Amino acid sequence: MSAAAQPQAKPDGAALAASVRAVARAAKDAAAALSLASAAERTAALKAMAAAIREDAALILAANDKDMVAASGLTPALKDRLKLDASRVEAMAKGVEEVAALPDPLGQVMAEWDRPNGLHIARVRVPLGVIAIIYESRPNVTADAAALCLRAGNAAILRGGSESVNSSGAILASLKRALKSTGLPEGAVMRVPVQDRAAVGELLKLDDLIDVVIPRGGKSLIERVAAESRIPVLKHLDGNCHTYVDGAADLAMARRIVLNAKMRRTGICGATETLLVDRRVAKTYLPPILDDLAKAGCELRGDSETRALDHRVTLANDTDWDTEYLDAIIAVKVVDGVDEAIAHINRHGSHHTEAIVTADEKAAAKFMAEVDAGIVIHNSSTQFADGGEFGMGAEIGISTGKLHARGPVGAEQLTSYKYLVRGSGQVRP
Amino acid sequence: MSAAAQPQAKPDGAALAASVRAVARAAKDAAAALSLASAAERTAALKAMAAAIREDAALILAANDKDMVAASGLTPALKDRLKLDASRVEAMAKGVEEVAALPDPLGQVMAEWDRPNGLHIARVRVPLGVIAIIYESRPNVTADAAALCLRAGNAAILRGGSESVNSSGAILASLKRALKSTGLPEGAVMRVPVQDRAAVGELLKLDDLIDVVIPRGGKSLIERVAAESRIPVLKHLDGNCHTYVDGAADLAMARRIVLNAKMRRTGICGATETLLVDRRVAKTYLPPILDDLAKAGCELRGDSETRALDHRVTLANDTDWDTEYLDAIIAVKVVDGVDEAIAHINRHGSHHTEAIVTADEKAAAKFMAEVDAGIVIHNSSTQFADGGEFGMGAEIGISTGKLHARGPVGAEQLTSYKYLVRGSGQVRP
Repeated sequence: MSAAAQPQAKPDGAALAASVRAVARAAKDAAAALSLASAAERTAALKAMAAAIREDAALILAANDKDMVAASGLTPALKDRLKLDASRVEAMAKGVEEVAALPDPLGQVMAEWDRPNGLHIARVRVPLGVIAIIYESRPNVTADAAALCLRAGNAAILRGGSESVNSSGAILASLKRALKSTGLPEGAVMRVPVQDRAAVGELLKLDDLIDVVIPRGGKSLIERVAAESRIPVLKHLDGNCHTYVDGAADLAMARRIVLNAKMRRTGICGATETLLVDRRVAKTYLPPILDDLAKAGCELRGDSETRALDHRVTLANDTDWDTEYLDAIIAVKVVDGVDEAIAHINRHGSHHTEAIVTADEKAAAKFMAEVDAGIVIHNSSTQFADGGEFGMGAEIGISTGKLHARGPVGAEQLTSYKYLVRGSGQVRP
Repeated sequence: MSAAAQPQAKPDGAALAASVRAVARAAKDAAAALSLASAAERTAALKAMAAAIREDAALILAANDKDMVAASGLTPALKDRLKLDASRVEAMAKGVEEVAALPDPLGQVMAEWDRPNGLHIARVRVPLGVIAIIYESRPNVTADAAALCLRAGNAAILRGGSESVNSSGAILASLKRALKSTGLPEGAVMRVPVQDRAAVGELLKLDDLIDVVIPRGGKSLIERVAAESRIPVLKHLDGNCHTYVDGAADLAMARRIVLNAKMRRTGICGATETLLVDRRVAKTYLPPILDDLAKAGCELRGDSETRALDHRVTLANDTDWDTEYLDAIIAVKVVDGVDEAIAHINRHGSHHTEAIVTADEKAAAKFMAEVDAGIVIHNSSTQFADGGEFGMGAEIGISTGKLHARGPVGAEQLTSYKYLVRGSGQVRP
């Protein structure tokens, strides 16, 4: 990264720790204020954010140009991720407006009841507090993540990839301007002051100021965060998703679903990576399914039974079953019915999204009960694993952990709760 | 700890890691089976556990005698915690029966809806999986924790304090016998094979096999677990709870509540540690309140204003405001109304349980909205912070974290969920 791309010169260890702490402190102070802001105030701030992004489009694009120049060595895919243009800036503003239109989750009474001693107990939704989000060099995530956090009354500390530092900085400046104009604290969106790994290390120590850390991106980043963090982590790990075509599947439906699950978009975490096919139908179903995939440009890797059915299939090795390709490659395995499919998925899957195609309700019920994943789908495409497709509005990712939130993480999943107990002088016997 | 008290000789590092891993693997295999067991099967196993504890009472008491002999150097309070007798064994069996009678949380449809494309989405309660519980030398927790985990379909890995190793081992043997007799896997209750810190260190690395770790007990243990663990932690930290007596409080109610909140039981996490009193009423309310406390045997520490009202009050220093005494000691401070009370609590409290006594609904509403704690109480005693008192049945503790579970952690809080998506061939456009 060029020196020009750094928000400020790199300080020594103690100064770094102090500056990261100051950022987190500002966020925590803002979170206290945000938790008391009304839904209408937060909605107004979100609308102002969208407007500020539109107004500052030229500034944001100029900052992005700087990033693109510095990023000349990146792969085309990474450059495409980093690149902004007028329509992408407009999409970002629209995304923030959509979050502004989401139902406000705060204050909702999740449950309430009376005790025999007359105490009234209510469980009420409250913000989590301060959320740190560590993400790839995707400038739009800066706006998306900040907006979703604000909808749920949380302050956000953002740490995007180094390559996007100027773009993210310009977007952040717009968001802060909007917050200020609506009277909410600018500390509601903060970013890590220095763009290096040591700053993230300091951040992950601040469990007295930060309530949750959400890492997005590569598996190694996420594992590093999970290993280092003293703060609770909402993991967005890899999606090694499977589609299992059962012996009782309708062939036309299976072809349509497999092709979509693998090839609609290969780079998303809900894309199918391994196809499992019931031995009962492998000889008749696999040839057309494999042909669809090959014609769509998919590389085929398979076990020996699959290979025997199509000369384009290369032999899969053991690591293929554990690989999230995020690419036009599929691993294919013939299995002995739903039981072997479930066993294979529970061994090799990443607990993200798993699908079965079958007309046999009993097999489907078994699969849905026994597969250990956040999302289990019957007769549809794994590519539906998405907060928007679930009707939850925007999402910050898909959680593969079991604690707090599993599956799509939207505004509601970015909340906690508290118990409000109302009495009339009761003491405990 | 004597050599006799160890379950087995202390192995070297690699062997230790392997033996801890084998325990966790057995628990994970059992968890898969448990998640498919019916509510009736788990209820039957819980009832069999209670019966086994009763049948094995003599064995359990003999094991406890061994622990008590080895524990001769402990303080009376710790010895009392460790000691079992016939009535405590019976109470343990009864506790397990109560868990057997709790509503089963699994399979519950938490929400369901249809999408415009015809997909049906349901969020359904499932077990967390494998829960590791690290606790004090309280033998009864072995049965309580195992039972609550089983009610929610989870396997438990238990690690009680060293001093209780024989008692816990005997109780565990009874529980396993009961599981076996009802056809559920014995791996549903496991314990760490070796009683030393290194074994806990190995356990905390196993994020591929263990889903949650719940540390109970001292602050230093919990902080060590939070710092070291790669597994998500449900923290049960200290309860530095406050009772604030507002200027609009009824004096008789305030006296009754403060005395109960502090002195009913001083060793529980919901006991009030600091009393805050509104300056408007300090001169008239504090003398009788302090007198009640002193007569009940409570040591009084306070700020200079409090001291001026009662000669028995010694001057509190800065650490008093941050201390969970768990003893008959109270810190007392005069504050400038509800705003200063909230600020003091949010600065010094541990986000556990906080109470306000007032007849002013506006002050109460402000306190309940702005105090950042799992439980906020109006006109009642902080000692009600308890899963049983909340009507949730047994609890494993009070969570002071904001993620996943806040406040009492009962069977429902020991669950996760999964999304079941049912389609008819839909693919994503």
